[in-house]
Amino acid sequence: MAVYTDLSDEELDRFVQGYDVGNVLSFKGIAEGVENSNYLLATEAGQFILTLYEKRVDPADLPFFLGLMEHLANAGITCPTPVHDRRGRALNRLAERPAAIVTFLTGVWVKRPRTEHCAAVGRALAGLHEAGQSFTLRRPNALTVDAWRPLYQTCGGRADEVQTGLAAEIESELAFLEDHWPRGLPSGVIHADLFPDNVFFLRQALSGLIDFYFACNDMLAYDIAICLNAWCFETDGAFNITKARALLASYSAERALSKAEIEALPTLARGAALRFLLTRLHDWLTVPAGALVVPKDPTEFARKLRFHRSAGDARAYGLDL
Amino acid sequence: MAVYTDLSDEELDRFVQGYDVGNVLSFKGIAEGVENSNYLLATEAGQFILTLYEKRVDPADLPFFLGLMEHLANAGITCPTPVHDRRGRALNRLAERPAAIVTFLTGVWVKRPRTEHCAAVGRALAGLHEAGQSFTLRRPNALTVDAWRPLYQTCGGRADEVQTGLAAEIESELAFLEDHWPRGLPSGVIHADLFPDNVFFLRQALSGLIDFYFACNDMLAYDIAICLNAWCFETDGAFNITKARALLASYSAERALSKAEIEALPTLARGAALRFLLTRLHDWLTVPAGALVVPKDPTEFARKLRFHRSAGDARAYGLDL
Repeated sequence: MAVYTDLSDEELDRFVQGYDVGNVLSFKGIAEGVENSNYLLATEAGQFILTLYEKRVDPADLPFFLGLMEHLANAGITCPTPVHDRRGRALNRLAERPAAIVTFLTGVWVKRPRTEHCAAVGRALAGLHEAGQSFTLRRPNALTVDAWRPLYQTCGGRADEVQTGLAAEIESELAFLEDHWPRGLPSGVIHADLFPDNVFFLRQALSGLIDFYFACNDMLAYDIAICLNAWCFETDGAFNITKARALLASYSAERALSKAEIEALPTLARGAALRFLLTRLHDWLTVPAGALVVPKDPTEFARKLRFHRSAGDARAYGLDL
Repeated sequence: MAVYTDLSDEELDRFVQGYDVGNVLSFKGIAEGVENSNYLLATEAGQFILTLYEKRVDPADLPFFLGLMEHLANAGITCPTPVHDRRGRALNRLAERPAAIVTFLTGVWVKRPRTEHCAAVGRALAGLHEAGQSFTLRRPNALTVDAWRPLYQTCGGRADEVQTGLAAEIESELAFLEDHWPRGLPSGVIHADLFPDNVFFLRQALSGLIDFYFACNDMLAYDIAICLNAWCFETDGAFNITKARALLASYSAERALSKAEIEALPTLARGAALRFLLTRLHDWLTVPAGALVVPKDPTEFARKLRFHRSAGDARAYGLDL
């Protein structure tokens, strides 16, 4: 749930009149997106999402994000497509913030994904990776292995406030991953945050991918590892190997995994779990009193991390070696 | 901004299938409404608002609210209209809460109303009052003069924490209003919360009224007094007599005010200001740490109250006596 910027009527009207979308028919803040303020904007031309980029997004990254969405949409991936204003710009300013209008995507995100949803996500992720190969802008992953220790240090050793023993566990995991992080695997554009709330379905069919604001260039298999964390654990913490097998099989049917990628999977999955553990820990420990955002439980990813540490090899994820 | 109830996919699908609206195409929590959780629901039949009634709404009042919206819509007032399910019910249950689907209204609420908006609101309010005369359900006003002292007592004398001297001011005001509250003025259904965020406009034309969850039976002129408080003060606290004159003139053109109503207007305006001062004060002093809702500043209505106290008679609102 985002913090909402207060927009005056005149500001909004002036902004929308810069686009060839007709008059505003409706405008409502929507309770989605932690990083940005999102509004559902209905105009005479249809429905759109208007996003105001708040302080956690680096404005220098916006041409990459918006360019990527446009590139992917042109390549046939269903995702929000930036609307250009009358002067041809996708990126604009509103209420002293960077702002963009993108197309509205129908579909509903799935609260409790089933195996068929995981299969659909694997297929879509491979399609995204392939379509991303021809995208020319680059953005290094700001939340990969090198960034984790500095991020952890911002928590000032307070991890044990969340769970006793968590600090030692994180420190040992950091040391392991810094030593064993895979290098040289096939790389390209990754979504880097493809959780269930970023994937829309209409009935059982995947209808679109949203929220490209963590997208970057990194190892493609790392994106798979993020999806294993995001889609294949049950709410009770149990890993569902059937879901993982479905996700990996449908991914591989679109883009074959190399032997090196398969071997790296448990380490990549540990890294992905640690990345979300650390950002959640940071948010948990730094959330201001009275904040509008309720931080998510970091220990969920500590449990996931332990599962991946126990995985001997990719057979733990349902792959035949 | 509401607290959102977590709905499972199955719960939502089952609920919507109870209505003749086709399949769900989109479902998003919207950041409006403090009392309830509101979702924008798009289906094959169009757009709707799905409301889950949270604990501040008494379920026993819902037939009045939903029945009123339906009555007003049938009388030609543009307002959300409850959709009946396949069994004919407007009121249902979802996620262990009362729930209803109402039609979606186009339009945008005006952050900084101008005189022409105030005129449109006056006209619409009179239309609402006339259409309400034939509505047969009744709901006493739970937030009128008798309720203010008990409400103030829940704040436990802590008003001076908000502003020095506020407690004494409220106590003297309570005593005055308990002695001088008008009786016997023309009564009927009032909206009781017709603030700018509950009135939609398309370009300059009023396109609909929303949020009938404070509606009740009370003196019609008290509803006008609420609107004077809600629409006719500038953000710097100054009362804008031009706006008040426009609101009252367009109201009177639809429904003539009696001499007694005109005489009572300053007292009713004081009461309306005190009512919002007290509910805001209550919310301000009782908001839990980490709440999703940021309480609104109570002192805004203390300032408005002082203006009304200084008004000798209805000429202060632009009326000719």
